[in-house]
Amino acid sequence: MARRKARATVTLRKPAERVASEILGGRRATSYDVARLAGVSQSAVSRCLQPGASASVKMRERVRRAAAELGYTPNAIARSLITRRSNLIAVLISNLTSLYYPEVLSELSAHATVHDERILLFALPHESDIDETLDKVLQYQVDGVIAAVRLSLSQLEAINRRRIPVVFFNRYLRDHPVNAVCCDQVDGARVLVTRLHAAGHRRFGVIAGPKDSVVGEERLRATLEKLQELGIRDTPVVRGGYDYESGAAGLHELIRIGKKPPHVAVCANDLMAIGCIDAARFDLGLAVPEKLSVVGFDGVGPSTWSSYRLTTIRQPIQRMAEATLTLLMDRVENPKLPPEKRVLAGQIVEGGSAKLG
Amino acid sequence: MARRKARATVTLRKPAERVASEILGGRRATSYDVARLAGVSQSAVSRCLQPGASASVKMRERVRRAAAELGYTPNAIARSLITRRSNLIAVLISNLTSLYYPEVLSELSAHATVHDERILLFALPHESDIDETLDKVLQYQVDGVIAAVRLSLSQLEAINRRRIPVVFFNRYLRDHPVNAVCCDQVDGARVLVTRLHAAGHRRFGVIAGPKDSVVGEERLRATLEKLQELGIRDTPVVRGGYDYESGAAGLHELIRIGKKPPHVAVCANDLMAIGCIDAARFDLGLAVPEKLSVVGFDGVGPSTWSSYRLTTIRQPIQRMAEATLTLLMDRVENPKLPPEKRVLAGQIVEGGSAKLG
Repeated sequence: MARRKARATVTLRKPAERVASEILGGRRATSYDVARLAGVSQSAVSRCLQPGASASVKMRERVRRAAAELGYTPNAIARSLITRRSNLIAVLISNLTSLYYPEVLSELSAHATVHDERILLFALPHESDIDETLDKVLQYQVDGVIAAVRLSLSQLEAINRRRIPVVFFNRYLRDHPVNAVCCDQVDGARVLVTRLHAAGHRRFGVIAGPKDSVVGEERLRATLEKLQELGIRDTPVVRGGYDYESGAAGLHELIRIGKKPPHVAVCANDLMAIGCIDAARFDLGLAVPEKLSVVGFDGVGPSTWSSYRLTTIRQPIQRMAEATLTLLMDRVENPKLPPEKRVLAGQIVEGGSAKLG
Repeated sequence: MARRKARATVTLRKPAERVASEILGGRRATSYDVARLAGVSQSAVSRCLQPGASASVKMRERVRRAAAELGYTPNAIARSLITRRSNLIAVLISNLTSLYYPEVLSELSAHATVHDERILLFALPHESDIDETLDKVLQYQVDGVIAAVRLSLSQLEAINRRRIPVVFFNRYLRDHPVNAVCCDQVDGARVLVTRLHAAGHRRFGVIAGPKDSVVGEERLRATLEKLQELGIRDTPVVRGGYDYESGAAGLHELIRIGKKPPHVAVCANDLMAIGCIDAARFDLGLAVPEKLSVVGFDGVGPSTWSSYRLTTIRQPIQRMAEATLTLLMDRVENPKLPPEKRVLAGQIVEGGSAKLG
């Protein structure tokens, strides 16, 4: 024991770089290298570096210094094989260049950190591009999956078969119980139509999202249903790709296909609403909201910019992200919990882009 | 062997769910379960599921079917302990709610997929928040690190000590050779000043980035140096946080502190330039560019919107992401490659927000 102590003291005086290179010769350090340098057993090293495990203060300090010198950190991946927890959550997301999903990802990341989980990112160009990606996701023993893209029932079952819990973000599966956190798209869309109708608007046009967007289809259906309840039928609908350009193109198309130009453009998201406003002002010379009321959905950053001041539904993204992580981690801890869906209300933002009643 | 075959045939006829639940009883499947169901050895399963390893077509097909029934995928994490490759790349990034970094992340993700690498995301609120995160990064045996945040020399050394290659994105360390891919900030800033000066502008103001931004400091220094070379001194400088609000506030402050209001606002990024334009138009009634020329930097999506049509420097984000992955993966394959810095030129975009000569 005396010899060991002496040796440790001597080595610790050498420059850290030299010690590391002598012992490692170019390799990454393992717990055995730390044990050798600290003059203790490998199992003692494991104990010392594990929070809560029993080890003396002196022993811990000796191991900590040796680990620091060798640049050793406990291998989270090796540990995951023992604990069956990787502390990795797969996030499936599309459209990172939109305005909405970066905010979602940022909040999911912040809340994952709270639960000591890391995000393994699967960014898809489109939400229907999941097929090739799913195999890759399943190769990592992730603790859970957050799906902010559309999944088919068979894709969901492929994940479930591996006992990995899934929470859907702002979408779910019809006719199948799943875990999901959603903004209330239906209520949001109905509130907007109700308020626009109350202001006297009767000529509506809809710039909807792409057909493979679950969220967009829900907003479209809710909008048309509420309009019909109010006695407004044959509302022209055009489709866009959720981007600025297709919002602008959508307005041009609405005007082209309609008998009369609309007084209101209901856009499936804020980015298309912004494109629609710019097209109205700069291409068509239509004052917003005097000649055309424009509404969006999401409440993303640029919707509040002075040039737009959008009338929109703001999604509670922060609370949605928090709820998503809570639902997911509850199921990581207890896989037998039944599926649960949480629907959070959005908030109407009365900007300057629409006349409301 | 005959018995084994018969057994496999019988089980394969049962519904997959039932087979899985009989064998697994709630666990995740391992390669041993697949071996049992397929009636082969575990090492045969490993061989069959590894591309390129030797196994008969018949054997492969039998193993593949058993694996599918049990919901088994080769464990990428367990494999990483053998191959010393995790196929994970840590991306350290801040400011995901800006307009620039989501585009960067999206491109990095696309190019990582090309190299069969997955992104482990570390999203920091600010670029100087790295300290607490670095330990977490090092606990995963990532193949490499992409740092789109500031790292100190000691932080970089902590990563290097673990033999993990690092590539900086749009930043580097002064006086220390590192791998880095950057847009040419200096040249971009100098081009803007030169063109503005040629149009006759003499009264400049700068809305710089936060002090902890490496990129922002470089743009600021280059802008002031070029101005001095052209004989323009005492240019007022205010600082913002790279967001819309601080671009607007920055213009108000420039006007407050200057002897005369500036004719040009040089903004450290597009988002602040957009805030600055809105403040000029809606708060101060200054026509852009007639009364005030505004320039940005980045060339992000909204810079092209009709309401802004920014004069800016567009960074070649896609090519930068591609170069970043190339530099990194070259060093994963061959850790002895010397540090390399690639500087890609940005492109001036002559929008409508500034009068240029």
